[in-house]
Amino acid sequence: MNKRVIVDIDVHHALKSSDELLPFLPRTWHNEWKAMGVIPAHYYSLIGAYRKDAYPESGPPGSDPALMKKQLLDENGIDYAILTTDAINISVYYNPDYANAVAAAYNEWTAGYWLQEDSRFKGSILINNNDPVAAVKEIHRWGDHPDMVQIVMPSASRTLYGQRIFHPIYEAAEQYGLPIAIHPTAEGRGIAPEPTNAGYPTRYMEWHAGLSLSYIAHLISLVCEGVFEKFPGFKLIGMEGGISWLPNVIWTLDNHYKSLRSSVPWLTKYPSEYIINQVYLTTQPLEEPEKKEYFLQILEMIHAEKTLLYSSDYPHWDFDAPKTVELSLPKHLRAPVMGETALQLFGLKRPVGKEAAE
Amino acid sequence: MNKRVIVDIDVHHALKSSDELLPFLPRTWHNEWKAMGVIPAHYYSLIGAYRKDAYPESGPPGSDPALMKKQLLDENGIDYAILTTDAINISVYYNPDYANAVAAAYNEWTAGYWLQEDSRFKGSILINNNDPVAAVKEIHRWGDHPDMVQIVMPSASRTLYGQRIFHPIYEAAEQYGLPIAIHPTAEGRGIAPEPTNAGYPTRYMEWHAGLSLSYIAHLISLVCEGVFEKFPGFKLIGMEGGISWLPNVIWTLDNHYKSLRSSVPWLTKYPSEYIINQVYLTTQPLEEPEKKEYFLQILEMIHAEKTLLYSSDYPHWDFDAPKTVELSLPKHLRAPVMGETALQLFGLKRPVGKEAAE
Repeated sequence: MNKRVIVDIDVHHALKSSDELLPFLPRTWHNEWKAMGVIPAHYYSLIGAYRKDAYPESGPPGSDPALMKKQLLDENGIDYAILTTDAINISVYYNPDYANAVAAAYNEWTAGYWLQEDSRFKGSILINNNDPVAAVKEIHRWGDHPDMVQIVMPSASRTLYGQRIFHPIYEAAEQYGLPIAIHPTAEGRGIAPEPTNAGYPTRYMEWHAGLSLSYIAHLISLVCEGVFEKFPGFKLIGMEGGISWLPNVIWTLDNHYKSLRSSVPWLTKYPSEYIINQVYLTTQPLEEPEKKEYFLQILEMIHAEKTLLYSSDYPHWDFDAPKTVELSLPKHLRAPVMGETALQLFGLKRPVGKEAAE
Repeated sequence: MNKRVIVDIDVHHALKSSDELLPFLPRTWHNEWKAMGVIPAHYYSLIGAYRKDAYPESGPPGSDPALMKKQLLDENGIDYAILTTDAINISVYYNPDYANAVAAAYNEWTAGYWLQEDSRFKGSILINNNDPVAAVKEIHRWGDHPDMVQIVMPSASRTLYGQRIFHPIYEAAEQYGLPIAIHPTAEGRGIAPEPTNAGYPTRYMEWHAGLSLSYIAHLISLVCEGVFEKFPGFKLIGMEGGISWLPNVIWTLDNHYKSLRSSVPWLTKYPSEYIINQVYLTTQPLEEPEKKEYFLQILEMIHAEKTLLYSSDYPHWDFDAPKTVELSLPKHLRAPVMGETALQLFGLKRPVGKEAAE
């Protein structure tokens, strides 16, 4: 057993088949669900999306709790796995009524099935943020559930996340002490705009390499619009978008704040302070610069001791085992990144036998 | 006199008034030009756009060669100033015939007036890249002019710059050995898409802080589409977009190349190699991290000895004097960044009395 607390905050659990959702979905949507599901992938990945060894006997990777417990939790000594579904992109579906119903059904399914399977599984509240009123209702429906520990939304959006149409969502999240995690891959799908501000990339590699673009845009917006000031309990997690773009955003915003602060008079602190205290990024995928020292320098620049959270992205192809990530980190960052920061952020119970970190 | 070669590669010369362009513009466009000009600024900057002391007796900042020679060249010991106009955004104008005519007129005006005023002034060929056939013609018209040393286009575009509609422009640029400089601020104007992939920012500060988004998107596209491989003589300059976002792009692309190289089989080198050898960034504005060592680390990560070029952005408010920039750099970077790299890149004659750098 790993002596450290290990919390994996991005695990994609999946339906065995689309039929598995039907008991939770109003009948009016059954045919559309069977025909459309969550909007399918649009760029072709020649290496697929999954770990080759993550396929259960039947159903797609991530759909069998028993295999996930064995392959992810037991083998890697993971104390908590936060399930993020394979349906985060539902917010970019064309019809918000459908998206609301599917999001609600996923939450029922996660809470009624997966969270009953193992106390190490924790859930994410799936919302359709393209209908903020409905999203707030969904947060209220699950906010007091003891095992629903965060809210998930796609990073792809027609509107920047600092803008006020989303503030009621942040208010509700703050009320329940739930962080909001944004996750990429809806970029360019459904009602989401083109993946870059200069149109569609040509292929999967370019599209995937540019997924941090949404994060940069949203973070600038969230800071300048005063979301972190207005909701001091609001915590944002940027999943799976890398980390080395963050220093640029921090410094650029601080620099702009010096000359343009009168255009954002509601800010009482430097942008960097909001970011370091209220924003988190995840380890999967971690950059691998030509020199290891560059990686260590970036960790310092982003204040990784406060902002970085371990994630495996299981069962996707670019899965990172906790041991690999832990060994890539300098010693003083291992405890906070691998689990201690997450334990506190999500209000999780300290696992028996695992002392607070050195 | 500064003992180093100083080349300022981003100086905005301007028309005294819109009438100054009329002699170079076909009569059919005169009324539209007087009414519309180059598409005006869309976000309100509460600190204005210009240095307060850069206003000549009449006309806007940048419109008087005598004042520019005194205030920029003489006072700062600048050997060459590459004029980039105040009209780079012409490519996002709605009507390409108008944009072609205005670009051509600006080139006539620059070559016929400014380049005659002082041999330290060098010109940029303004093109309307939204009409690539016309843009290529314009490059051929000026490519052999001894004092036109680069091509300029806006970073805002409906289409990513790696895509093949732009390749004839790169072919022509390569033929004349002219670097192509891209410059921000057309983002969200005219036919340019929304400034982020999640819509319009709310105010100038957010819009301006996010201007590197286009650079990231274009650079990923240019690398993956094989532009640097297809045109080994093609050199790209990313002006005024900062520098600390580049390590993320380099590492992310190299990492993706490892697993997805079969989707870009035309690449014969790692993405980082193309970038370090064929891409340049400019110093204005330089990031100012909380710790000076972070800045030095970033300079190393981007291989600043090869990739970084001094620019003042005169006469804009965020002007950086050469002395300020020089002193912020470690000693071994001062000569290449302040002028030696530019001297070579633009094929400029070594100024009399200035020896090759130590």
